[in-house]
Amino acid sequence: MKLHGYFRSSAAWRVRIALNLKRLDVEHVSHHLRHGEQRDPAYLALNPQGLVPTLELDDGTALTQSLAIIEWLDETLPEPGLLPKDPLERAKVRAFAQAIACDIHPVQNLKVLNRLRELGHDGDRALAWAASVNVDGLSACEQLVANTPGPFCFGDSPGLADICLVPQLGNARRFKVDVAQFPRLLRAEAAAMELAAFRDATPDRQADAE
Amino acid sequence: MKLHGYFRSSAAWRVRIALNLKRLDVEHVSHHLRHGEQRDPAYLALNPQGLVPTLELDDGTALTQSLAIIEWLDETLPEPGLLPKDPLERAKVRAFAQAIACDIHPVQNLKVLNRLRELGHDGDRALAWAASVNVDGLSACEQLVANTPGPFCFGDSPGLADICLVPQLGNARRFKVDVAQFPRLLRAEAAAMELAAFRDATPDRQADAE
Repeated sequence: MKLHGYFRSSAAWRVRIALNLKRLDVEHVSHHLRHGEQRDPAYLALNPQGLVPTLELDDGTALTQSLAIIEWLDETLPEPGLLPKDPLERAKVRAFAQAIACDIHPVQNLKVLNRLRELGHDGDRALAWAASVNVDGLSACEQLVANTPGPFCFGDSPGLADICLVPQLGNARRFKVDVAQFPRLLRAEAAAMELAAFRDATPDRQADAE
Repeated sequence: MKLHGYFRSSAAWRVRIALNLKRLDVEHVSHHLRHGEQRDPAYLALNPQGLVPTLELDDGTALTQSLAIIEWLDETLPEPGLLPKDPLERAKVRAFAQAIACDIHPVQNLKVLNRLRELGHDGDRALAWAASVNVDGLSACEQLVANTPGPFCFGDSPGLADICLVPQLGNARRFKVDVAQFPRLLRAEAAAMELAAFRDATPDRQADAE
């Protein structure tokens, strides 16, 4: 299998963590987002959205969208499980993951910051937009896990929620958000970062890191 | 069960379709988004993101995020199934749904348009932003189902992909996008709109419609 990604993409980062938790070794193919390599025709044939990640299977099948890829991994390689077995608990974990993957990340990613630049907003105003989106979204996430058992987001093992949280906190820091306001999220992150699966997936440890 | 929603919210619209397909009758509670009712403290206690929809179960449990709610419905009431049984096919359906729910809808919703207004962009420029996000995203969606069997997005029965598509096409029209450029998507929409489950979920048929 090949993972098409980019070291700094937090959606690709999620899939790197999941692959590590499942102990899967894949070939990594980097597409430099700031150079627009994700819009090369050969890549668009794999991923019509022109986004990373794409997981390319050995038979050429291309799976897109990080959460869909992670659920596929979890369904085809069930151990260790990344979602609880109980439907209600699964729904809560998925809702937390989607609060990040739908309502934070896409509203502050490179594509949106480029759109803002086209409207004349870059530098401080773009940073303020991205920071505000992170603060709003992570404040809600903090409440979604306020009463769950720890140390991870939903109990004593890492799962889809932690996989989404750790890269998003990475983004929040990059946008100068004071993450100390999210103590429950930081507790989950600290538990995750004790695991090699999470440590080996960080942007600075990727071959294409700048 | 109570569905907390708003007639025009396309995320709530998705859940209305899913409830209709599952033949579940629920109480509808409207929160007027333009009046900010989703930020009432009582509602924030149910949904810390201050977004619709929320599905409130009879025991008071609150489920948030439309895709998580729909997967929960599908896991607890499997017929009619809203996702294929094969993991690879499920991954493709989920990827299509997430292409809409992560990468189109949140980048053109009321919250983002309000942020643009704060930066001095409303009227034509906000409309152009929203239209462009829809064109980019739906063009990719058109390709994701270019070679699938019809008439629905993924075969001969409606599912999660169609549930996300129909409300998004509604948004695209509201933002003056010429949807004739998406013939495969329109074919799926036409098949869906032959079903009462889809027709009864449209914004204009809701009690809170303006």
